[in-house]
Amino acid sequence: MKKPLFSFIFSSAFILLLAAMLFSHCAAPEEERALTGLQEKALTFTGPLPEDAFEEGMVRSEERIELGKMLFYEPRLSKSGLISCNTCHNMSTFGVDQLPVSVGHMWQKGPRNAPTVLNAALHGSQFWDGREPDVESQALMPILDPVEMASSEEHVLAVLASMPEYVERFREAFPDEEEPLVYKNVGVAIGAFERILLTYSRFDDFLRGDAGALTDREKEGLRAYMDVGCQSCHGGTALGGTAFAVFETPAERESGESDPGRFDITGNPMHMHSFKVPSLLNIAETYPYLHDGSVWSLSETVDIVALDMLGRELTAEENKHIVAFLGALTGEVPAYALELPVLPPSTEQTPRPVFD
Amino acid sequence: MKKPLFSFIFSSAFILLLAAMLFSHCAAPEEERALTGLQEKALTFTGPLPEDAFEEGMVRSEERIELGKMLFYEPRLSKSGLISCNTCHNMSTFGVDQLPVSVGHMWQKGPRNAPTVLNAALHGSQFWDGREPDVESQALMPILDPVEMASSEEHVLAVLASMPEYVERFREAFPDEEEPLVYKNVGVAIGAFERILLTYSRFDDFLRGDAGALTDREKEGLRAYMDVGCQSCHGGTALGGTAFAVFETPAERESGESDPGRFDITGNPMHMHSFKVPSLLNIAETYPYLHDGSVWSLSETVDIVALDMLGRELTAEENKHIVAFLGALTGEVPAYALELPVLPPSTEQTPRPVFD
Repeated sequence: MKKPLFSFIFSSAFILLLAAMLFSHCAAPEEERALTGLQEKALTFTGPLPEDAFEEGMVRSEERIELGKMLFYEPRLSKSGLISCNTCHNMSTFGVDQLPVSVGHMWQKGPRNAPTVLNAALHGSQFWDGREPDVESQALMPILDPVEMASSEEHVLAVLASMPEYVERFREAFPDEEEPLVYKNVGVAIGAFERILLTYSRFDDFLRGDAGALTDREKEGLRAYMDVGCQSCHGGTALGGTAFAVFETPAERESGESDPGRFDITGNPMHMHSFKVPSLLNIAETYPYLHDGSVWSLSETVDIVALDMLGRELTAEENKHIVAFLGALTGEVPAYALELPVLPPSTEQTPRPVFD
Repeated sequence: MKKPLFSFIFSSAFILLLAAMLFSHCAAPEEERALTGLQEKALTFTGPLPEDAFEEGMVRSEERIELGKMLFYEPRLSKSGLISCNTCHNMSTFGVDQLPVSVGHMWQKGPRNAPTVLNAALHGSQFWDGREPDVESQALMPILDPVEMASSEEHVLAVLASMPEYVERFREAFPDEEEPLVYKNVGVAIGAFERILLTYSRFDDFLRGDAGALTDREKEGLRAYMDVGCQSCHGGTALGGTAFAVFETPAERESGESDPGRFDITGNPMHMHSFKVPSLLNIAETYPYLHDGSVWSLSETVDIVALDMLGRELTAEENKHIVAFLGALTGEVPAYALELPVLPPSTEQTPRPVFD
């Protein structure tokens, strides 16, 4: 049985450090409030969420975001006409399906727990194994995966091209492109929608200067979080999503069948059983936990990870406080994302669903 | 091969006639506009939609409607934790799944096409075979059906009782009841939500006095609809949903395997292959058509039904006009229904999903 190892990507850590320095510099003057020592300490490894996750040079247009939302909720992108992004990343339940692993085409089960789409655009890479660089490229994958939406690029484009409203919306969302309705742009549009899916929590208020935004127990939890060293992996604005770490779940160790993780992508033996460190934002709502979704209790998960990754056996008190702090990371799902779009009707040209 | 027969419930027809008389009496003074002959003629068999579908003596409270909406979108009522009412009655696609038959637990397929929940509360009975009297009793059935949500009353109540927010919301929604969290009330709450799911269309405006709300072609279609006699089954405010008729689909006749329909419920030979006449509101959006979902084209469906039920072979012109008129029956999905609720988190007591 393998002993778990630490394995960080130091370049990401460096970027995080820079970002944290930047935030700690900005927060105080913006709020014109003196920060407490606890706030200052927290700002050394994280910062409040930005307004959105668009990066320099990206197009942030209403047309593109709205099209992305429609595609996110569009079941006709799937082979069966039944499964949309929202099936597994249900906006009603914080962008996850709350199942150990997801259920896809023909009730096939996915290999890993579905991460939330909320704040996902802040991650350094996508998927548990980090195999895609951003939400734009990630969004294209489950559509084609035979155990998820089981579609094809041809099917998706035929579906979208069959409805005049979609053709027009692609034109408006990509006004400078001669051929806006291409598969890549499906991902660009869904990605644009995902880049506004940031969830502001009381911890954000705290980091922006409102020391009273956390309860005393949550503050104790934040102290314990830092004392124990959680931020060494779970740092940055998303409290995770950037570093990678070698990790086997208790269920995997028991069964002796551990997911190779990032090794399957890179072939690098250093990456055996290595996974992207998940973000802790909304963690109280995105159970069950770990990459195989094998643990339902957040408290239990905190104990497992602290012991395994940091060699720390938490006291019951520490555990309670940290769990309380993690609860303060539950944010608001943007109202706009919760408003279902009314989808355009199929036409005679729309390919029929195939569900057996 | 059986020859299709007409079979109406005359008591329903009588109530409809009364309702239509009432509406035709009320509409003119309310709008203070002179009605055209076409409007007056239409008001003899239908009327504008009411404000909601609550009946005398029913409780219409915000708390009950909001709880009903949460339950409608709640996948944890299902055995798998994956399927909610909205899975097959997708609010983004006019309350249907746009599949020939629905897909449920373990990818099992339902026996009939899923009717829309929009305006369903206006129907005289529920399901294609009319086996439930109202939306309150109907809503309880798919939750328990082994091929749909595959749950049990015990599971549903255990799930809801495990979350303090639901316990509180049942108390608020049923303030006079000692034990508000009972299975029956799940249906009462979902029913309350469904009773506001009415979709106002341009045809409503037309019936309320705005003669310009329909295009000339749509008016031609309305004339043809009445000349052909569609309103003899598709009358009332929902243009259907009350009478029953014996009907076999072309696919059934070809295969020689016809759905017994209402006969399976009543055992009355007169009810062999008898089905509730579907409502035509939003019909352009709720394809595919007929009780087996075997026809995708609305135009084709109009021809099939006119010939089969009324012995009328429509001209291409008549068909085109009627289809145009049916398009004017597409209404607005209430914005409130499209706003996804954020569901409360599971607790340690919440039963785990079982999805294999």
